[in-house]
Amino acid sequence: MKKRLAILLSGRGSNFVAIADSIRAGKLDAEIALVIANQSDAPGLAIARERGLNAVALLAKGFAREEREEYDRRLADEIEKNKTDLICLAGYMRLLSPEFVRRYPGKILNIHPSLLPAFPGLEVQQQALDHGVKFSGCTVHFVDEGLDSGPIIRQAVVPVLDGDTAELLAARIIQEEHRIYSEAIALVLSGNYRIDGRRVYES
Amino acid sequence: MKKRLAILLSGRGSNFVAIADSIRAGKLDAEIALVIANQSDAPGLAIARERGLNAVALLAKGFAREEREEYDRRLADEIEKNKTDLICLAGYMRLLSPEFVRRYPGKILNIHPSLLPAFPGLEVQQQALDHGVKFSGCTVHFVDEGLDSGPIIRQAVVPVLDGDTAELLAARIIQEEHRIYSEAIALVLSGNYRIDGRRVYES
Repeated sequence: MKKRLAILLSGRGSNFVAIADSIRAGKLDAEIALVIANQSDAPGLAIARERGLNAVALLAKGFAREEREEYDRRLADEIEKNKTDLICLAGYMRLLSPEFVRRYPGKILNIHPSLLPAFPGLEVQQQALDHGVKFSGCTVHFVDEGLDSGPIIRQAVVPVLDGDTAELLAARIIQEEHRIYSEAIALVLSGNYRIDGRRVYES
Repeated sequence: MKKRLAILLSGRGSNFVAIADSIRAGKLDAEIALVIANQSDAPGLAIARERGLNAVALLAKGFAREEREEYDRRLADEIEKNKTDLICLAGYMRLLSPEFVRRYPGKILNIHPSLLPAFPGLEVQQQALDHGVKFSGCTVHFVDEGLDSGPIIRQAVVPVLDGDTAELLAARIIQEEHRIYSEAIALVLSGNYRIDGRRVYES
């Protein structure tokens, strides 16, 4: 049986589209069981529906910060109802509660547009430009309770050019994101890896 | 007239040897006016003498921490006596005093075996391995008053492999160090760059 993915997004979810394209092209052996967004107007939901995928809006509005765990329990209910094997964050702009993260050890992936541990958080490309690095890139990692801090599965490198703006750099990085996210998902679904401390080894 | 380099080292100074080799091969248009070490038994001093270079031991022993400025003044005296244009740290294991750094704005370079801002400080390769990054590298930067923190001139990237130890990774990185340090020195000596904030642009 195909492994089943849950995709969490807040916006367009260009990485969601790349994952769906990888599956369609036969490069990733999986199926998208659920696309879930915390905003009903997330463009990613409309794209998911167009593609005939199960698309659910679980509105975060109305949940105060202290109710994050309650929101995340509903999220988990939806995920479990759909019997998914792996949860993939694709521009999901809401912090997951520690309770949620602990519920799915090794089962949540995220992608971040920098070579972590450099430049976690937001406005990542501007951080990289302001720091003056000559290379940046992207990172697929397991999600733990920290910010952009879990064990690293895949990274890719791109040059930073003298003429770059945050937008130009982001466009160069996102091409690599689309490639390595599917590769990382395939590796994790295959089970052919082991984690020792923070190091992820392929086996 | 050729631009004159001062090289500061504490050990073998493999980057010193690479710079000397680049000059000898005609790839770097400069001369080494002074090799100075804070320990008389630094192997780099013996190598400098073998090559007929001006090699000076300025012993740090006997200078307490609070006398760092006094030590650095003697260092500056030696550097100025030799009329150097650029100071290149090559494994110089002594912190420079803020006074010394301020005396040579934009005139001190260092090389560090990681993709800064990731993994500053010591035991750099072990830090990278423990963090589980898939790429590391090296950075040539201007020295400012922080730790491994000045504007970045050049970086190079190497993969981190599953079988790597700190030694294997260091050996892969040092090959790139030897290449980019001479490139960065040539750029700075040429004056064909400008600094805006932390970004170093080639012009």
